[in-house]
Amino acid sequence: MARLVLKFGGTSVGDIDRIRNVARHVKREADAGHDVAVVVSAMAGKTNELVGWCRQASPIHDAREYDAVVASGEQVTAGLLAITLQAMGVNARSWQGWQVPIRTDGSHGAARIQDIDAAEIVRRFEERQVAVVAGFQGLAPDNRIATLGRGGSDTSAVAMAAAIGADRCDIYTDVDGVYTTDPRIEPKARRMARISFEEMLEMASLGAKVLQVRSVELAMVHKVRTFVRSSFEDPDAPGMGDFDNPPGTLICDEDEIVEQQVVTGIAYSKDEAQISLRRVEDRPGVAAAIFGPLADAGVNVDMIVQNISESGDATDMTFTVPAGDLDKATAILEKAKSQMRYDALQSESGLTKVSVIGIGMRSHTGVAATAFKALAARGINIKAITTSEIKISILIDGDFTELAVRTLHGVYGLDKA
Amino acid sequence: MARLVLKFGGTSVGDIDRIRNVARHVKREADAGHDVAVVVSAMAGKTNELVGWCRQASPIHDAREYDAVVASGEQVTAGLLAITLQAMGVNARSWQGWQVPIRTDGSHGAARIQDIDAAEIVRRFEERQVAVVAGFQGLAPDNRIATLGRGGSDTSAVAMAAAIGADRCDIYTDVDGVYTTDPRIEPKARRMARISFEEMLEMASLGAKVLQVRSVELAMVHKVRTFVRSSFEDPDAPGMGDFDNPPGTLICDEDEIVEQQVVTGIAYSKDEAQISLRRVEDRPGVAAAIFGPLADAGVNVDMIVQNISESGDATDMTFTVPAGDLDKATAILEKAKSQMRYDALQSESGLTKVSVIGIGMRSHTGVAATAFKALAARGINIKAITTSEIKISILIDGDFTELAVRTLHGVYGLDKA
Repeated sequence: MARLVLKFGGTSVGDIDRIRNVARHVKREADAGHDVAVVVSAMAGKTNELVGWCRQASPIHDAREYDAVVASGEQVTAGLLAITLQAMGVNARSWQGWQVPIRTDGSHGAARIQDIDAAEIVRRFEERQVAVVAGFQGLAPDNRIATLGRGGSDTSAVAMAAAIGADRCDIYTDVDGVYTTDPRIEPKARRMARISFEEMLEMASLGAKVLQVRSVELAMVHKVRTFVRSSFEDPDAPGMGDFDNPPGTLICDEDEIVEQQVVTGIAYSKDEAQISLRRVEDRPGVAAAIFGPLADAGVNVDMIVQNISESGDATDMTFTVPAGDLDKATAILEKAKSQMRYDALQSESGLTKVSVIGIGMRSHTGVAATAFKALAARGINIKAITTSEIKISILIDGDFTELAVRTLHGVYGLDKA
Repeated sequence: MARLVLKFGGTSVGDIDRIRNVARHVKREADAGHDVAVVVSAMAGKTNELVGWCRQASPIHDAREYDAVVASGEQVTAGLLAITLQAMGVNARSWQGWQVPIRTDGSHGAARIQDIDAAEIVRRFEERQVAVVAGFQGLAPDNRIATLGRGGSDTSAVAMAAAIGADRCDIYTDVDGVYTTDPRIEPKARRMARISFEEMLEMASLGAKVLQVRSVELAMVHKVRTFVRSSFEDPDAPGMGDFDNPPGTLICDEDEIVEQQVVTGIAYSKDEAQISLRRVEDRPGVAAAIFGPLADAGVNVDMIVQNISESGDATDMTFTVPAGDLDKATAILEKAKSQMRYDALQSESGLTKVSVIGIGMRSHTGVAATAFKALAARGINIKAITTSEIKISILIDGDFTELAVRTLHGVYGLDKA
């Protein structure tokens, strides 16, 4: 018998019928004899309603009060799921963050979990009791509720899995796993059986929005085997309770991935904008002078490329920002033109960043060249390139997004079953 | 400077605009230099929504889980009011039941408050901090949330007032005080300046639904001066902040009522039904044989009248039940006819109980006779009478309800300004 954490998000617990469906997933695992802890989010829409009320009360508000209000959403779901499980004959009880307790730091509204005292929950596994834990929340040092920031229930689940030494943390969501690319763009996209933590981090931060980035980081640090699967499938369909090979994608240490592929996935991020500063004076500290004010203004700068300028006595600085931040970034840069000492500012929006991801590329050469060649053959112009150990990101005109994704998906052999 | 508890019910905090209005009441008292603790209910409709979800999840459910779900309503209001107060420049923080803590017994769903540790709240009065306390809830011995049963926020407020030694507990509600009778029936009804705890208990339990009966009992035991006033008046209107004579009705010890009146109010309760058992064998234990099964079935028996039967060798037993319980009561009695040994069962519904209330009647004679004479003069037939030290209750045909209330209101001089 194994020990499992099951996590269900807001759409999975959106109403009582869906909570009943969630309870059937939980019952299946409990009936199989596993120790089960469940982590739940607020019912879909509830958190937004509660946040809206706080903003209506005052646009600027005490994060401790915000936490007390907003954490109530998960509290409600946990109680309702416990009631539903009991009605199905499953021994269950709800736990609020302060009851476990899940101890956090004092950063109300965006707290980090510091410690989980799961002794009582583990003790009750011996009585075959399922723990239903309210996600997204904990107890801060001031003895008040702290929330972990949006999407924090994923983090709660992974932290709980680490605390109870779970064999696996199953994240039930509205997709049935992690795909080699977006299936809405490339119907040949395949669900991966396994993906490494590092690859998942690149996939998630690049817009394959399945899991919170922070929860993947935490899973990587604590080596929590995390499994992405669908909450909307029939809980009692064949194979759903197969412990060794359930339907979904396992996010795990790369050691567990026997047949490593060079490239495992293609991610993309639309609505990027590019800014180029021409003939910036080439002196120490110039990058800080440019990116410091942007960071202070909360502009998220991504790909940065620095080139010798044409004349050779200065430098050209090119970087991307989200298209929504372009006007703000441009205003900041133009205001500071005299300090930054550049000749001209050029910008372009409507761009897409396409990324090729794979831990195998660390030991393979020519992966980038393959991408450049394939895109060129389709007439897709490359505006900027950045690379890391396990990722190549390429900036292109947004009109070519789907063509580029399909081209790269094909050229690395991801189309094959 | 005084120490006050202010309590606001669900309609008073029904949306953010109303919460803002409530905050103005609180700010007025805080600005006057008083120590202020506020007790709040859930936003109107929220508790019903949460209860509905619990029932949908399972008609029969764990009261501990019900409590975790339902208590979230008050938690939300407390946080939102604290935010609103802070935005108005008032130093405030919210307290959930488990944070104070308000300790209750283990009767989840209908818990009783056992102890409130208000030391930290009182300490913060020195820092001029307003405590915003979630009503209706506390911490049970099992370290889980317990709720006090419907309307429990009134009880929370009175208990908090006793714990902090408040000079007064102001119950803000949707009426502006306690009236000599229902103003919808008798426009000449007057708001009482003061009413004794004992009288209020009779008024409340007889259908003048202003305050929970339990909270009045608690106020009486702890001698908490309780003040009923309107939350919908302009918080800054003249006189609203007058500490000695604000607009509303003070419920207090009878010692504080200098000019005691013989009769202070006329209450009524519609939709009563009467059951008569004819020629019941007159032997010891017969009352227990009749009322035991009814109590077991949850039928609330009220006025009980026992007479010698016409022939003199048996007894007639007459009593009232809520009209909605008549069928159930009749079925129980007919099933047990052989054990109870009565000749015939007669019943009648559509009745009203009218009550004359006043502590002064303890030292006055002829109060009941005045009522009987006045009703007779209007042609109103009396079906049953019961009396206590401070109350005379009369059962009449429901069609005569308004006429009887007006007649009694007039005959005891309550019409006069």
